[in-house]
Amino acid sequence: MSVEVYRFEMSAPDDMHSFKQVLQSAAAQDARRLAIVAKTEGTATINDFGRSLASRAIHDALAELGICAHTQIILSMGSEGVISPGGYLFADRAQGEGRFPGLALGTARSQPLPAADLVNDRHIEAMRRTVLQAIDDAGIPGENIALVLAKTPLLTREIAAGLSSEQKGAANSSAMARAAAALGIGIALGEVDPAEATAEAIGKNDELFSRRAMVFSGTETRCCEVIVLGNKPGHLPAMRSGIIADLIDIEGMSRIVTGSADGGIEDARTIAKTGRISAAFLKAGVASNGRLRGNRTTIFSSDLDPDKHMRAAASGALGALLGDTRFFVSGGAEHQAPPGGGIFAVILNRGIDDKDH
Amino acid sequence: MSVEVYRFEMSAPDDMHSFKQVLQSAAAQDARRLAIVAKTEGTATINDFGRSLASRAIHDALAELGICAHTQIILSMGSEGVISPGGYLFADRAQGEGRFPGLALGTARSQPLPAADLVNDRHIEAMRRTVLQAIDDAGIPGENIALVLAKTPLLTREIAAGLSSEQKGAANSSAMARAAAALGIGIALGEVDPAEATAEAIGKNDELFSRRAMVFSGTETRCCEVIVLGNKPGHLPAMRSGIIADLIDIEGMSRIVTGSADGGIEDARTIAKTGRISAAFLKAGVASNGRLRGNRTTIFSSDLDPDKHMRAAASGALGALLGDTRFFVSGGAEHQAPPGGGIFAVILNRGIDDKDH
Amino acid sequence: MSVEVYRFEMSAPDDMHSFKQVLQSAAAQDARRLAIVAKTEGTATINDFGRSLASRAIHDALAELGICAHTQIILSMGSEGVISPGGYLFADRAQGEGRFPGLALGTARSQPLPAADLVNDRHIEAMRRTVLQAIDDAGIPGENIALVLAKTPLLTREIAAGLSSEQKGAANSSAMARAAAALGIGIALGEVDPAEATAEAIGKNDELFSRRAMVFSGTETRCCEVIVLGNKPGHLPAMRSGIIADLIDIEGMSRIVTGSADGGIEDARTIAKTGRISAAFLKAGVASNGRLRGNRTTIFSSDLDPDKHMRAAASGALGALLGDTRFFVSGGAEHQAPPGGGIFAVILNRGIDDKDH
Amino acid sequence: MSVEVYRFEMSAPDDMHSFKQVLQSAAAQDARRLAIVAKTEGTATINDFGRSLASRAIHDALAELGICAHTQIILSMGSEGVISPGGYLFADRAQGEGRFPGLALGTARSQPLPAADLVNDRHIEAMRRTVLQAIDDAGIPGENIALVLAKTPLLTREIAAGLSSEQKGAANSSAMARAAAALGIGIALGEVDPAEATAEAIGKNDELFSRRAMVFSGTETRCCEVIVLGNKPGHLPAMRSGIIADLIDIEGMSRIVTGSADGGIEDARTIAKTGRISAAFLKAGVASNGRLRGNRTTIFSSDLDPDKHMRAAASGALGALLGDTRFFVSGGAEHQAPPGGGIFAVILNRGIDDKDH
Repeated sequence: MSVEVYRFEMSAPDDMHSFKQVLQSAAAQDARRLAIVAKTEGTATINDFGRSLASRAIHDALAELGICAHTQIILSMGSEGVISPGGYLFADRAQGEGRFPGLALGTARSQPLPAADLVNDRHIEAMRRTVLQAIDDAGIPGENIALVLAKTPLLTREIAAGLSSEQKGAANSSAMARAAAALGIGIALGEVDPAEATAEAIGKNDELFSRRAMVFSGTETRCCEVIVLGNKPGHLPAMRSGIIADLIDIEGMSRIVTGSADGGIEDARTIAKTGRISAAFLKAGVASNGRLRGNRTTIFSSDLDPDKHMRAAASGALGALLGDTRFFVSGGAEHQAPPGGGIFAVILNRGIDDKDH
Repeated sequence: MSVEVYRFEMSAPDDMHSFKQVLQSAAAQDARRLAIVAKTEGTATINDFGRSLASRAIHDALAELGICAHTQIILSMGSEGVISPGGYLFADRAQGEGRFPGLALGTARSQPLPAADLVNDRHIEAMRRTVLQAIDDAGIPGENIALVLAKTPLLTREIAAGLSSEQKGAANSSAMARAAAALGIGIALGEVDPAEATAEAIGKNDELFSRRAMVFSGTETRCCEVIVLGNKPGHLPAMRSGIIADLIDIEGMSRIVTGSADGGIEDARTIAKTGRISAAFLKAGVASNGRLRGNRTTIFSSDLDPDKHMRAAASGALGALLGDTRFFVSGGAEHQAPPGGGIFAVILNRGIDDKDH
Repeated sequence: MSVEVYRFEMSAPDDMHSFKQVLQSAAAQDARRLAIVAKTEGTATINDFGRSLASRAIHDALAELGICAHTQIILSMGSEGVISPGGYLFADRAQGEGRFPGLALGTARSQPLPAADLVNDRHIEAMRRTVLQAIDDAGIPGENIALVLAKTPLLTREIAAGLSSEQKGAANSSAMARAAAALGIGIALGEVDPAEATAEAIGKNDELFSRRAMVFSGTETRCCEVIVLGNKPGHLPAMRSGIIADLIDIEGMSRIVTGSADGGIEDARTIAKTGRISAAFLKAGVASNGRLRGNRTTIFSSDLDPDKHMRAAASGALGALLGDTRFFVSGGAEHQAPPGGGIFAVILNRGIDDKDH
Repeated sequence: MSVEVYRFEMSAPDDMHSFKQVLQSAAAQDARRLAIVAKTEGTATINDFGRSLASRAIHDALAELGICAHTQIILSMGSEGVISPGGYLFADRAQGEGRFPGLALGTARSQPLPAADLVNDRHIEAMRRTVLQAIDDAGIPGENIALVLAKTPLLTREIAAGLSSEQKGAANSSAMARAAAALGIGIALGEVDPAEATAEAIGKNDELFSRRAMVFSGTETRCCEVIVLGNKPGHLPAMRSGIIADLIDIEGMSRIVTGSADGGIEDARTIAKTGRISAAFLKAGVASNGRLRGNRTTIFSSDLDPDKHMRAAASGALGALLGDTRFFVSGGAEHQAPPGGGIFAVILNRGIDDKDH
């Protein structure tokens, strides 16, 4: 088994030109499994239908090319700042080594969750189990998982009608949906104590957090949907991930890129310049008081959605480090990092040689 | 004469708490001259009245403290991303050395420009002359000017009624107003050939650009208003400025901070960490096709104002370099840099010692 | 005593030209008391500073004209659709009859409310008492009150830190602040049963509602601020008010304008055309499912703030009826009308003759 | 031949539940021709992909039901205020009389227009010819046409690269694209003098206007696409249309609904209440100074798109008249009405009886 990673660009949510090219490069019709992780452009609001459009276009493109492999898709909205709309295709093939011999991929999806099971213990548990299935699917030990990408259902105001007032209070809150899901991932990864990660802790106890999770919420699914990526034992690691202190923590990002506590910015820039980075994922959070390094920002006190501030600013910081804009940046890191922090992950190809390992 | 530089913060456009403190630290009532350059928060749209509110509050604060010194104010709207709302106070004192013995300040303001004189040759000429007056006021040679901060009137649709169709075509365009003003500055600084910088070139001939100008347009003034900053001959330079290739050009920024073509990111970070940077100004532009390093962005193809994308993303890049969010970031670099480029400037205090000179 | 009513226009939140004219027409320096109710333009979001600017400008204008009379000001943000930004000045004079011999005015303001007293029983009680004081101030029986205009503090996220989770859940919610205040008004007017109007009912029990209240929330005050308007016994009524079924209920509006259950749209148009309507106030609500006459709208399912949908649409309906755009329209009618309904009020001058009474 | 009219609702741009129902009611698989005119919800900005999504969903729904009839689709974005997202299906059948025996339908589509043919004489001419074809297709005399619904390509900034500076100046302007198209329609209908309707007049000479046109621009087509509706000679008219003075001109709307210069608002309300109105179309314009009945609005001086102000306000006025929210409302009436005016049209079914004819 080998997993290949491809980057594709989108000139609009339904532009499948580049996506079809990478499907062909990947010989996707012969793949055992596909995973797609992409950012769509649009207003990223309740009435941004770009994600629905992209989803339709992706399914049509797969059908058009006669691709029947199991496919897990995570689409995240919002490409503000210097984010290039587009995404990554992961193709799991039965044989061959490819450029990422050490990369492992697993996917899983839960049953649909009823509204009464959202933003509470049952939500946490459903995500926990789905992550464990995905890890099992990846066939590597849990400690080798570098990144869990998870989509959680959102408790919309519509489906929350008739529920408890606690649940109603969490209705339409992407942050609360992400928070519940992140606790479940943290338990699955052994990073969060299940005794503490209860319904009461969701969105409240910020001492509980995973260190390898990125969670997205959406109305387009009623299931927990999970893609895990990690490193196969006995191979050079293909993936590096970790916590950054805040969204301008370029030194933290550099340590992750270099895989070394001593790795400096220039070292990380060198790796980036030599084309070694095949994929980059950043989930940015900001402390609830809106302060960064002690100074005020307007991230939570403006008419612009906080996630837009975060995505755009983080894209500048990450773009500065990588010298590139083709990456995946998302906002909102509830229980996915300490308050104000974020998660960063990169996939490295073998490149010209293996000097930097 | 000595010029002192103070940073102040704002929790709202009319929050003058920190501003009054720096006025007192500056003994502003004894200053010969004051200059204020600040970013206000708000929606930064046609109906963002935060700038008007800040202007009123600043004048009231000055009056309240009995400060009669000539005061030049440039307020720019928009604090997206991680920009901390606030600004810089420059106080020009008759005596003393202060922390910036090499820093020179000059200001000037033109007569009000009639609508018929906007976005054409007369606009260019008015700005050119105002800049020359400000340089004269600063008392240093033009080549020692590090930064021209200029406010230009905007040709609003309202006042453009009755003008030529060329002028009407430029109505309500901040970009065109900034472009005309930037050409005037470029001529004054000897960076733009006056024979080429004619009305026809405004916003069109992108081979013409200043390298030391940041221009802002606004409806709150009918005059060209200019603040110049530079280095006094015979002193260690207090200010460094230059062109950056694009808004994620962290290496270009580092060369400017270090004042050396060999200055690396780590060197710049070291200067920043030791508290040597008293002020930082960034004007970010993006190529008109919206591409950065060859890749697509949605900067010119979304409902979010292009300047908001730019400010937020640039704040992330600059924040990553400086490890701080208290800086001045603005968008739109027409004729102020090559297409896609920007301008960056820092003021350095003497700090603990002068090792890095 | 007589109360005169003046309309003023604003070309920007700090444009006091028309306001100063009406202050002079009103001989405001001799008034016993003034009340100002106005709509400012702007984005009407958390970072719309137009209201702060207008407030500063109004106080400066009053000071400039040497007016010391007690002045109660209610500024409401948002002039979408065809709403003309501007407002009404009410001047209470010691003598004379004027055009509104039957109009009574009262004002009151509570002590500042601590955060712990917001959006609960104490909030309801504070508003109840303030309304009773204002009615007392107006010197007419409570049943003669036609309209209570009330400003309530908002429980911001900032000041809610440290409060109970119930209160935190209501933080930053204009709707909840308005709801609590409206219950207090309803009790004061005898329209709401105090035994039912408890903390638990706030925003929940929609069978409780006043029929003569318009409530606005804002961060600019910590007090309950109230202006009541009504009809003096023994005079022809100057004011008519009542509930409308929804924001396109032109027949309900017509019954209120005509003061008759049989009053038709044409009758109301006739009154409007003859210049009898000196002021019009509309508070529009929409049922929480976003439906109107059984049909779906996007009022609660778009990126545009629900209040903007409501204000703009209601301005079209009211403009159609009155043939005018100089009126006060606001959105959000929690406990001020039955679900989906609204409140409408007009002040009629004696006009050319009294035929329509 | 008979044309049937069906209304369908949409809970999202890709919700085809109601649309499929009307396709079945219409026995659309047996129709000679179909036309669809709908409003989609979304942000109605450059990156609102709701229209693309709806278009895909409609085509999929037609394919799913095996419908091969020629189908002309006009989708317009923006359902602000009280507009219910949804649309009208027109089904042209070979036989039968139906509820609209007097209604005629015609459609036509031009060849794709190269960018060089947009917003100039060739644009005007292309639209003129397409309208004449559609009228011919409808099989009724031009004077019997009640409404021309036309979609025009937009000259985007992207495709305008390399064109003349006049054309570049009109790039990305929906208003200019609509203006050019409207002149072509006006010529075709004999309402605009072809000698005057030249490139120079586009968007400038506001004395030239059609009285029966509604034009929409979009990036989704490179062709002129036209649907005409009118009344067959020898039948009771099914359709009424005309100019309204402004978007709150409820008396003008009433004259159109009643088909009588003496028709009052109550008469129009009666027709509406009895269910006679099967479709209503309103195109709202506002004078370029933003004034309505002499009073200021913020329609052209706010961050909210002018068309959103217009659509929302017009929906309130029209909703008040019709007591309904299921109608088609659009903004921007360049050369489609005198300055500040608009166009209004209704389709009447025979209803219970024919009393009101």
